[in-house]
Amino acid sequence: MQNPVMIETSARHVHVSRADLDILFGEGYALHPKKNLSQPGQYACEERVAVVGPKGRFPAVSILGPERPQSQVELSISDARAVGIKAPVRESGDIAGSPGCKLVGPKGSVELAQGVIIAKRHIHATPADAEKYGLRDKQVVQVKYDGEGRALIFGDVAVRVRGDFALAMHIDTDESNAGMVRRGTVGEIIV
Amino acid sequence: MQNPVMIETSARHVHVSRADLDILFGEGYALHPKKNLSQPGQYACEERVAVVGPKGRFPAVSILGPERPQSQVELSISDARAVGIKAPVRESGDIAGSPGCKLVGPKGSVELAQGVIIAKRHIHATPADAEKYGLRDKQVVQVKYDGEGRALIFGDVAVRVRGDFALAMHIDTDESNAGMVRRGTVGEIIV
Repeated sequence: MQNPVMIETSARHVHVSRADLDILFGEGYALHPKKNLSQPGQYACEERVAVVGPKGRFPAVSILGPERPQSQVELSISDARAVGIKAPVRESGDIAGSPGCKLVGPKGSVELAQGVIIAKRHIHATPADAEKYGLRDKQVVQVKYDGEGRALIFGDVAVRVRGDFALAMHIDTDESNAGMVRRGTVGEIIV
Repeated sequence: MQNPVMIETSARHVHVSRADLDILFGEGYALHPKKNLSQPGQYACEERVAVVGPKGRFPAVSILGPERPQSQVELSISDARAVGIKAPVRESGDIAGSPGCKLVGPKGSVELAQGVIIAKRHIHATPADAEKYGLRDKQVVQVKYDGEGRALIFGDVAVRVRGDFALAMHIDTDESNAGMVRRGTVGEIIV
C-alpha cells in the first residue's frame, strides 16, 4: 500500500474551557489524564460530563484535555439527531454560529451558546510526513479503506500539517461504521 | 452524470411475520399502510413497535409492510451499539445466526431469537435498468456521491435485479451521515 495512514475513530467527546471547567467541576479543578491520544499533548480524561440536547442526553461523555480557549462538543450526525441538535460539519475550533447545548458536571452546569459540531474528517501530519507523502497543509485528499464488505473511499479529507502533530486520520463514528473501520487499521492516502 | 441512481436512506425499521404481528397487535391484525416506498408493493405502516436490546430501547420503530416469512430488524451500527446489540452486516432475509432482540407492541411482546441485522448496501434494479446500465444480478459496483464536504465513493454495493424492483440504492443512516446524503439525490454507479 502506498501512503498508508492510521485511521482513528473519534467517538463523541467534549473539550472544555478553563471557565467552564470551573463551573462543571469546581474552581481550579485539574483534569485527570487517563490515556494519551495519538496527537502529542492530547489526552482522554477520567472526567465525564452529560451532554444535553432538546430531545435527549448522553449521560457520560469523555472530556479530552488539555483545556481549550472555547468549549466544544464533537458529535456524529447520528448522535446529534438522537439528542435533537442540528450541528454543522466543521473543522475543530471553527464553532462560530454553531448550535449550543447544556453540559452537566458534578458541581454545576453550563449552557453553551455555541460549540456543537460534527468534525470534518482530516489527516494530521508533521512537515516530515507531508514531505514524504507529497502533501501540503490544507490540501484535500481521498483515503481508501477496505472494510469487511463496506469498502469506502473518503473524499474531502482535509490535510493539516503542523510540527506538533503525528500522522493519523480522524473520522467520526458514523464514518467509521459506514466503512467498518477497525481499531488500529490503515487506509491509503490518494493524492 | 453517467449511470445515475437515486440514493435512499433506510432508517431503522422492522419487518414482521404474521405470527409475530398476531402477538404484537392482536390475532388477525391488519397493518395500516401509511406511505408507499420506492420498491413496488412495499410500504411504511402507521404501526410502530419498541425495539429493546440489553442496553437500551428505541420506543417507536416503523414497521414496513407487507408481512414477511420471518421478522427482521434493520438497524445502523450506531443504533445497534446504542441498544447493546452486535449485529452483522447482511443482505435482507439472511438472518441465520444473527442476534435477536425484544419487540414490544400494544398487545404483547416477542423475544426474537435472531433477526437483527445491519443492511448491506445495495441497488435494486429491474432487468431493463440492468441492461441499460450494463449491470447484472449479484454484481458488486461502486457508487460515487458528492455530499457537501463529505464526498464518498461507496464500494461493495451489491446489485439485485428483479422484475418487481425499481431502480434505487439503499443505504443506512450511518452511511447516509458519512456522506451527507440528502433526500432525493442521486449518485453515480461506477461499473
